Amino acid sequence: MLEEALRFAETNKEAALDQLKAFLRIPSISTLPDNKQDVHRAAEFLRDELLRVGMENVQVIETSGHPLVYADFLHAPGRPTILCYGHYDVQPPDPLEEWISPPFEPEVRNGNVYARGAVDDKGQLWMHVKALEALLQTGKPLPVNVRLIAEGEEEVGGEAIAAYLRKHPESLSADVALVSDTDMFAPGLPTLCVGLRGMIYTEIEVRGARTDLHSGIYGGAAPNPFFALAQILARLKDEDGRILIPGLLDGVEAPTEAELAAWKALPFNEETYREHEVGSTELVGEPGFSVLERVWSRPTLEIHGMPGGFIGAGAKTVIPAKAVAKVSMRLVPGMEPQRTFEQLRSYVAQITPRGVTCEVRLIHSGEPVVVGTENPFVQSATEAMREVFGRETVFVRGGGSIPIVGEFQRYLKIPTLLMGFGLPDDNLHAPNEKFHLANFYHGIESIVRFVVLAGK
Amino acid sequence: MLEEALRFAETNKEAALDQLKAFLRIPSISTLPDNKQDVHRAAEFLRDELLRVGMENVQVIETSGHPLVYADFLHAPGRPTILCYGHYDVQPPDPLEEWISPPFEPEVRNGNVYARGAVDDKGQLWMHVKALEALLQTGKPLPVNVRLIAEGEEEVGGEAIAAYLRKHPESLSADVALVSDTDMFAPGLPTLCVGLRGMIYTEIEVRGARTDLHSGIYGGAAPNPFFALAQILARLKDEDGRILIPGLLDGVEAPTEAELAAWKALPFNEETYREHEVGSTELVGEPGFSVLERVWSRPTLEIHGMPGGFIGAGAKTVIPAKAVAKVSMRLVPGMEPQRTFEQLRSYVAQITPRGVTCEVRLIHSGEPVVVGTENPFVQSATEAMREVFGRETVFVRGGGSIPIVGEFQRYLKIPTLLMGFGLPDDNLHAPNEKFHLANFYHGIESIVRFVVLAGK
Repeated sequence: MLEEALRFAETNKEAALDQLKAFLRIPSISTLPDNKQDVHRAAEFLRDELLRVGMENVQVIETSGHPLVYADFLHAPGRPTILCYGHYDVQPPDPLEEWISPPFEPEVRNGNVYARGAVDDKGQLWMHVKALEALLQTGKPLPVNVRLIAEGEEEVGGEAIAAYLRKHPESLSADVALVSDTDMFAPGLPTLCVGLRGMIYTEIEVRGARTDLHSGIYGGAAPNPFFALAQILARLKDEDGRILIPGLLDGVEAPTEAELAAWKALPFNEETYREHEVGSTELVGEPGFSVLERVWSRPTLEIHGMPGGFIGAGAKTVIPAKAVAKVSMRLVPGMEPQRTFEQLRSYVAQITPRGVTCEVRLIHSGEPVVVGTENPFVQSATEAMREVFGRETVFVRGGGSIPIVGEFQRYLKIPTLLMGFGLPDDNLHAPNEKFHLANFYHGIESIVRFVVLAGK
Repeated sequence: MLEEALRFAETNKEAALDQLKAFLRIPSISTLPDNKQDVHRAAEFLRDELLRVGMENVQVIETSGHPLVYADFLHAPGRPTILCYGHYDVQPPDPLEEWISPPFEPEVRNGNVYARGAVDDKGQLWMHVKALEALLQTGKPLPVNVRLIAEGEEEVGGEAIAAYLRKHPESLSADVALVSDTDMFAPGLPTLCVGLRGMIYTEIEVRGARTDLHSGIYGGAAPNPFFALAQILARLKDEDGRILIPGLLDGVEAPTEAELAAWKALPFNEETYREHEVGSTELVGEPGFSVLERVWSRPTLEIHGMPGGFIGAGAKTVIPAKAVAKVSMRLVPGMEPQRTFEQLRSYVAQITPRGVTCEVRLIHSGEPVVVGTENPFVQSATEAMREVFGRETVFVRGGGSIPIVGEFQRYLKIPTLLMGFGLPDDNLHAPNEKFHLANFYHGIESIVRFVVLAGK
């Protein structure tokens, strides 16, 4: 069955690309009200193809926002169920003038297909569909059960799918989720992302005087909430970047020795990263940890902005009545959002200077996720990609959050395989988004092999 | 002559008030382009009255903005020259709905005249004109020389008068300036303001990464300019509010023992001030100094706002490329704006954390001013007010700046007497601005007496 499926994928490459191009021509920009019908059209396009390749229970599920598309093929009782996930909505294409070919007229150049959504995520979702087609057209029973769910709101917060998951977790029950919406660490290097940081996003608000005061008349007697806030913020981390919140690191799970060794072996140069990606005079962060350890496996605390007071051009001599800092923390395995928030709040209360009052508000949060590399599905995915790329798969983590992974963990109690085939220079959310065609085809083959291996 | 002048003032109270009301009816709002003609009309109104009372060389001096009004009476060779200053422009009256009587229809209630500009500064400027009238109508030679200059841009920065002073300082040469644009410390308490703090207004800008970065992907490696700025700001003052900039206090002149003793005797209660004026849980500032010392005679450092980054509602996970703090310092006698700025800049350079670059920019500055209480004009003013109010004059300072005072000091090399008759609850710049009529008449009498005493 594997050989037959792979042969089909190989001989139908052109057709797969042509269909993907048709999918990419639909400007399914979820954030623009004018494109609402286009988003729906993309859902229908996907539904039609899932029907055509032989998936069952195919349906467009209407929501209060953009629809979900569901399909399944559940004919392997007693075997694992894989939940394929992708999103068919895309980012707006602006600035249009920077696109070499128009964003919704896909064009192949230099072995890449250029279009908005090429890699994020229509192209990678299409790999799933084409892999399922290759397997189903053999006419042989699939060795696993498969569900596929696609959403049209990933770029605008993913509310509809989260609500659906909360309400109908049983209808998506599975043993593992397969998401292709991430990058390979470097070209040709098969990559599995096995951890994501969680987060808490907070506002720290400090209040001093009852109203804004004149800094000439009251300066020296009235508390300045921005100064108090600066004092608080400066005490949240030490000069080297260590977070000073007591108890924060209790229970934090360090990466395994094997994982750390694997990170060291990755093709990554801190100086190149500093110069080309960050562009600062130095990198900062906790001493004793490499950059990859710091961004993947250590909690961080960042200030995003400080609303309040006078921020116009020129001079206004006001002592503001209040000041706010937008502060978020990234959480690693072993940390819980609510506990972390309480630790932050309690520490801020301790270090709040006299003369002001301080409130810490939680805006939103997400749990950290990690999939053990010894997980059998991880092993299957690794083996599948090794067979395709001829190289050992590398395990990486992501410093950010992919909310759907947390939702799958929370409502379905399943791990997620982040098996992505993008490249770091694919221009996600930017002009000239592309998908390397070799990765598109390698992705289809990897998924075919994974499904077969997962059923063994 | 004194008795004759005072008698005239007494018997012409009603006329003086009626004329003031006519002056107040002109909506000379300097900041509103639609009121440009009204501002000019107020200048002409003032010019006509100065002509009528017998002043000489009366002229409306056109500028690139609103005009100046000038007049003099220089017939006391060898005697001192007093430069009277006031402004005939007013603040906008919004919010209109909070006025009990319309802002440009003056109304007398409870012994006060209510109108925009009643006390700031048309009413107080009118005291000068009426005092000069009372003296001139006696037909006897004035014991001093008098110049009067009034501007129409005080509420919008005073550029025209500053430019005129720079260009023609000789045409305003005098021995002392008399300004009535301040408050009495308490009702019935004759007050002379003999010191004002100077200031530097700066922007501290910190830059980290080349562009805004995602805090999930780069958090832990990229420098956060808001955090670096918080670290810098928190080191500018210690926890008790002492400014930590090295050398800052070198040369600072403390108030005299007599001045400090006088401040202690003022009717001032720190707890009442905290509760009713500031409204914070505690007052802050340097230990070992009273509130009045802190706001009048100690340098301060305030943060007004921190532009940059994300300040909208909700959450955006950005590590901003730059962060700015608007920071001003108040300067006391013995401090110079340029030297203070260099000290701040040099200290900030020392404490800038690694990974970021920092620039400190000077937006504007003003010199501190102080008039020794042993100055003979101060003595004359004190005596004049004692005779009127039957109480010893109190010497206070102002924590803020009145730019014209610095300009007089800089271009004319003369001290300024800030002899104001407003009250703390006169609603300057707010709805229901008023001027207590007893203070209006007491002001006229005080100025008449001062002119006579200054000539002795």
